[in-house]
Amino acid sequence: MPTRKRKLGRGVALVGAGMSKFGAFKDKNSRELMVEAYQELQKNVDKGLNPKDIQALYEGNGSSDLFENQIHTAPIMASWLGLVPIAATRVEDACASGGVALRQGVIAIASGLYDVVLVTGVEKMADLPTDKVTDILAAASDVVYEAPAGFTFPGLYAAMATAYMAKYGATPEDFMRVGIKNHSNGALNPKAQFGSISDLMKSRVARAKEKGQPVPTWKDEMDFMRDPAANPVVAWPMRLFDCSPISDGAACALLVAEDIARNFTDEPIHIIGSGQASDHALHERASLSSVYAAQLAGREAYEMAGVKPADIRIAEVHDCFTIAEVMATEDLGFFAPGKGAACASEGYTKRDGPKPINTSGGLKSKGHPVGASGVGQVVEVWSQMRKKAGPRQVPVDVPLALTHNVGATGGTCAVHIFERR
Amino acid sequence: MPTRKRKLGRGVALVGAGMSKFGAFKDKNSRELMVEAYQELQKNVDKGLNPKDIQALYEGNGSSDLFENQIHTAPIMASWLGLVPIAATRVEDACASGGVALRQGVIAIASGLYDVVLVTGVEKMADLPTDKVTDILAAASDVVYEAPAGFTFPGLYAAMATAYMAKYGATPEDFMRVGIKNHSNGALNPKAQFGSISDLMKSRVARAKEKGQPVPTWKDEMDFMRDPAANPVVAWPMRLFDCSPISDGAACALLVAEDIARNFTDEPIHIIGSGQASDHALHERASLSSVYAAQLAGREAYEMAGVKPADIRIAEVHDCFTIAEVMATEDLGFFAPGKGAACASEGYTKRDGPKPINTSGGLKSKGHPVGASGVGQVVEVWSQMRKKAGPRQVPVDVPLALTHNVGATGGTCAVHIFERR
Repeated sequence: MPTRKRKLGRGVALVGAGMSKFGAFKDKNSRELMVEAYQELQKNVDKGLNPKDIQALYEGNGSSDLFENQIHTAPIMASWLGLVPIAATRVEDACASGGVALRQGVIAIASGLYDVVLVTGVEKMADLPTDKVTDILAAASDVVYEAPAGFTFPGLYAAMATAYMAKYGATPEDFMRVGIKNHSNGALNPKAQFGSISDLMKSRVARAKEKGQPVPTWKDEMDFMRDPAANPVVAWPMRLFDCSPISDGAACALLVAEDIARNFTDEPIHIIGSGQASDHALHERASLSSVYAAQLAGREAYEMAGVKPADIRIAEVHDCFTIAEVMATEDLGFFAPGKGAACASEGYTKRDGPKPINTSGGLKSKGHPVGASGVGQVVEVWSQMRKKAGPRQVPVDVPLALTHNVGATGGTCAVHIFERR
Repeated sequence: MPTRKRKLGRGVALVGAGMSKFGAFKDKNSRELMVEAYQELQKNVDKGLNPKDIQALYEGNGSSDLFENQIHTAPIMASWLGLVPIAATRVEDACASGGVALRQGVIAIASGLYDVVLVTGVEKMADLPTDKVTDILAAASDVVYEAPAGFTFPGLYAAMATAYMAKYGATPEDFMRVGIKNHSNGALNPKAQFGSISDLMKSRVARAKEKGQPVPTWKDEMDFMRDPAANPVVAWPMRLFDCSPISDGAACALLVAEDIARNFTDEPIHIIGSGQASDHALHERASLSSVYAAQLAGREAYEMAGVKPADIRIAEVHDCFTIAEVMATEDLGFFAPGKGAACASEGYTKRDGPKPINTSGGLKSKGHPVGASGVGQVVEVWSQMRKKAGPRQVPVDVPLALTHNVGATGGTCAVHIFERR
């Protein structure tokens, strides 16, 4: 594809965001999670939100069809949020559904048709048994060519990880450090499904003592991560703590036309870049050690925004597996090809490093309710840019941030760039 | 919702359309059906289509998740059509998925982001047993409040039909005449799943003779429709021939920015109106005898287009059940509330009547592959406006046409207005 310099018809601003807690909630369905996220968003619009001003709803959702046996969820969400009869549209690109829904919201405002659009994402996964969820997720691979070969998602990303290791000499330890970093960020995020590895170690020690069992003697977090009893292999080299969890959750973002943004807040965040690309399923891909759709979506977003990778202060990237975060930091141009693993290991991507990645905890620790994940990323960059991230606030100002949301193994990628002026 | 007069940032034109045959095809999956539709579209772009000019793909799809156990179909379609790495986005609003995908295509071009967008719709349903398909479709009702009460779609529309009959004094015979009319149109459409009722009668008579069974003696089509052996009740007053079939199929439409339309054809069709609205599920609806979302979507489209219902020459409306067509002709303002059934019975909506409805055969006879239906409607209005409809070409010129696509019982409606200048 020749790169086209793309431009939106008018500017779009983000004036509020909110999310439910991510986790496993037996007592909540997707509608209730959506209400929880929307109610937080309402509180986060500085000058207040009159629901009657919302003109359209986009919903990122991976497969309520298979998870909840419910098709046609967008109008149901509009109904539960009190927003009927506005146009309500579900957007699905597997795990990139949220990011692609965001892009539809941006496009819809740019078109001139709407001034105020609510972008939402939601998934309810955790009520089903794990093997059933794994099977449902495998339906986002190519079910004609990949699933029958026995591939599930840990296997597909393990193939990418081994290709990456073979090509660049990275080690499983590099991936483990990505997981430790994201869990340590998640520990500071009250919405995250999981906390830090060190807290987990403490609780396991306490539990062993309580039960009179042999007390584990891990030296440090890396020792825990290397212990196959604590961190078993799922699909080598991806171990349990390389894989994002099965999660329930919802997230919302309020987009408005730039020229009316000040009606909602004095500190709008401008969405200055949006990119989206597709690719073949993994079995037909030229490279297993990078995600071409991410490179293209990134390039489109950077060109629209007129900024370079080095300008981006923080990014939320799609770490469904730790290898995915490593590839993302290369695909987006933050690090040179093959350097992402080493940069992660050396701390470049920590909250206080030069390029903080997944300050929210990422999909790995915050949780990965498929359709909500891409919109949850927006909640984090909004929080960081508005200095509302509490104990996990990065120590520097964030005028520019980026979100990167991948569908399946990279059949879809959506990238967005945010600016605080 | 206060009606807002909405305007697109720039004009959008339809410069080509194509569809697969609709029917039950054991030997074709959704990808192959999509290729069939796209190849026809390619032939229908007067000045030729260079696939490299296509910048984005929208795919209307109801639930490949449940029908084919495949999530993330949009990039797969892009891959099969040779369009990777363009942005590929699935849009889902149940049976309105195709119409809503069309709207996203219109919005995307209006936004300035894209100049050339391929809108597609597809569904592969007919390989599964009928009771399984009925269950899957029921997942587009509200599965928390409606499905557990035993409702499937024939039952939901039967509730609407009985409400309509009680309010306006219509009869089951009025609905039967809608079915006869649509089957007689479908008989002239080589893409339709089913032909006319009279042809069906002849084949049943021939089969009875061949097998030495008692030969039916129906006087005419209405006699056949009234015969409970030939046309059994599914959910009273909806009989078998009041219900659209289970279908496989795909359809495509090529949208371009108005200012480059002449690069593709000297006879572009302009999309001058687009409307979309949502509503609560049926159990929470104020009226069962009309579809409020259709009224609102129609109003939005008419206002954007600056035309009145009387100006529309032909319309493809969502006749998933015959009652749905009757309500549509009222919701869209073609006939006064309560007059739709009588107008249908009196022949107003026939191909040579004053307001031809569903000249393609409609969902009833052409077939209803859920995600494809809304885009299939576009193929028909394109064919009629371009005078390419062959033996079913309406006897008058068609400068203005309309499509009306409903999701579930009216939780979504998308309406579009087309102009040949």
